[in-house]
Amino acid sequence: MLHFKRIEKLTRLLSSNGLDAIFAGPSTDLEYLADLRLFDDERPKGLLISKAGKVFALTPMLYGEEMRIALGNEAVIKIWADHEGFRRAFVEGANEIGVTGGRIAINDGVKAVDLIEMKTALDAEYVNGAHSLAPLRRVKEDDELENLRRAGEIADMVMEDISKFIAAGQTEREIQETLVKLFAKRGCETLSFPPIVASGPNGSMPHYQDNARTLCDGDFVVIDMGCRYNGYCSDMTRTFCVGEPTDEMKQVYAIVLEAQKAGEAAVQKGASGQDVDRAARRVINDAGYGEYFLNRLGHGVGIAIHEDPYIIEGNGLPLEPGNVFSVEPGIYLAGKFGVRIENIVAVRPDGTAEPLNKFTREMIVIP
Amino acid sequence: MLHFKRIEKLTRLLSSNGLDAIFAGPSTDLEYLADLRLFDDERPKGLLISKAGKVFALTPMLYGEEMRIALGNEAVIKIWADHEGFRRAFVEGANEIGVTGGRIAINDGVKAVDLIEMKTALDAEYVNGAHSLAPLRRVKEDDELENLRRAGEIADMVMEDISKFIAAGQTEREIQETLVKLFAKRGCETLSFPPIVASGPNGSMPHYQDNARTLCDGDFVVIDMGCRYNGYCSDMTRTFCVGEPTDEMKQVYAIVLEAQKAGEAAVQKGASGQDVDRAARRVINDAGYGEYFLNRLGHGVGIAIHEDPYIIEGNGLPLEPGNVFSVEPGIYLAGKFGVRIENIVAVRPDGTAEPLNKFTREMIVIP
Repeated sequence: MLHFKRIEKLTRLLSSNGLDAIFAGPSTDLEYLADLRLFDDERPKGLLISKAGKVFALTPMLYGEEMRIALGNEAVIKIWADHEGFRRAFVEGANEIGVTGGRIAINDGVKAVDLIEMKTALDAEYVNGAHSLAPLRRVKEDDELENLRRAGEIADMVMEDISKFIAAGQTEREIQETLVKLFAKRGCETLSFPPIVASGPNGSMPHYQDNARTLCDGDFVVIDMGCRYNGYCSDMTRTFCVGEPTDEMKQVYAIVLEAQKAGEAAVQKGASGQDVDRAARRVINDAGYGEYFLNRLGHGVGIAIHEDPYIIEGNGLPLEPGNVFSVEPGIYLAGKFGVRIENIVAVRPDGTAEPLNKFTREMIVIP
Repeated sequence: MLHFKRIEKLTRLLSSNGLDAIFAGPSTDLEYLADLRLFDDERPKGLLISKAGKVFALTPMLYGEEMRIALGNEAVIKIWADHEGFRRAFVEGANEIGVTGGRIAINDGVKAVDLIEMKTALDAEYVNGAHSLAPLRRVKEDDELENLRRAGEIADMVMEDISKFIAAGQTEREIQETLVKLFAKRGCETLSFPPIVASGPNGSMPHYQDNARTLCDGDFVVIDMGCRYNGYCSDMTRTFCVGEPTDEMKQVYAIVLEAQKAGEAAVQKGASGQDVDRAARRVINDAGYGEYFLNRLGHGVGIAIHEDPYIIEGNGLPLEPGNVFSVEPGIYLAGKFGVRIENIVAVRPDGTAEPLNKFTREMIVIP
């Protein structure tokens, strides 16, 4: 079902950006605009939406029935058979909604190999549309905010649950599997990403995925996880200490905690993503660990786990009420350990940060 | 770790196809060439490999440590920070391995939005590399065949297990969850795709995903599932009948079964994917159901669940020993039911088909 209000806002955005249309492949943009969760295989598919609000659905034959059920008479549907390829259907649909020869934004759900074929099939100017929907999506509607709050509450509960489970002798994989079960027990079957459980030296890799190590006494263990509630993501990180921390561990933890708080505090009327990144980064830089903070401070969260606004040097756009994003400084010491503390925050009408995670940020020492 | 023998074969392929390099983003190509399973977020990353065998790894800073562990001194590694973007690192790496200005194939793990940025950053001709590795990957090595056989055996066992579980009154979701548990019990935690359980009228959608319906007496239920064993996929479909089938159901089932057998039998020395597709399709066409067979007859299977060779009209390339692919005819009657029967087969040295699935293809009626 097309969300006509969102489509209408999108058409105004397209016009004001000099775009004639946008083509969105399987992606959260399609969930946002049309509740479409398309199977992401090698067959090109998606919606081409014109600035006049006309919608053309490109679909391989084996998804034709689903597309008809989803969009019925709301869209021009063009179906292509496996053996012919998508070019004929794409050209026919583009002609029918009147965007041939125009300027078409391509979203981040389209494969480069398909764009190469589109260019040879349809005369048009193709431009980067990765952020075309950002002005819409980054300002959350009230029901979206409610879903994000609830997703955050569930993450809080699961973080508390897992804090009672962690112990030396367990493997990272056991903890990861337990997290999945705990989310299910709290009513969330779908996660926003596979939980990251990075213990000891693995903690220095922000998106560590191996899960092979057994926790030892004296380890930091970074736990980064979240669920999807009514489609909306939570994303939360805490770093636990198994046994007694060394002085260096205490010191690094304190710096990251101060940076995280400084980031949240910098969310104020008129502040930009860059301002918030700088506020947190300054704490880490001043403590001499700047080169060990390996990424931007944060990313927006919504239907997608990473979306606008990005909290990053170079993003000078003022934050707006309804923006929702992570504040997640870290210090990553290769071969030693890592510390990351992450909350999701929503920007309140007064411009300040409403944390959507409330579980303690103080260091928890597992006896 | 780079698979040097495969890389060497790849460089010869590049040269013979007039290519100077290939850029592969997160994809099974990177698993095949370098055991790399990269986190697929919005940050561009991958390997650029020249026809001279030089390898450049593009990586965002937060994956730098993993990339160094994986490739050590085997590759030129260029790391980019979130706030600067990937362009500088991409250009530096391309220069260092000498492919600037050349003809670069782009594989199917690259996003269109990133290709658009690459083009403005690095002078080169970018061409479709979706099938650049196909001549390598579609001929399986002995250990690959062993893994595929074992993955098929496990699917056989799980299909037998689930045949004893299916009953009217269960939901599609319950059956799906049971399949996941059965694979785990048989030693496979990782599936090649989320199992498809499509009952009654849902069976007419080949990749149905909703899972909401409760099975009724008189339903066909299409079960399409598979696991990954040592990284290699199985993929198998059977259609069960809950209670007594009608005459139409019996007739349609018999046609699909005959088509499936005809497809396997057409795998002979010198036959092409097109020949095999035609042999199965002819059975369905002749029975008057041609318009209800919605897709190609099959797809290759290996590390990827869909890969070359495709068993499809237009693919006139002769099959080769070591090819592994699905033979999966179906008849999909919208609003009524669907029937699909799918085996994976490997091409033997004599050119005939070795079925990797042995579970009965005859209709099983659940009492």
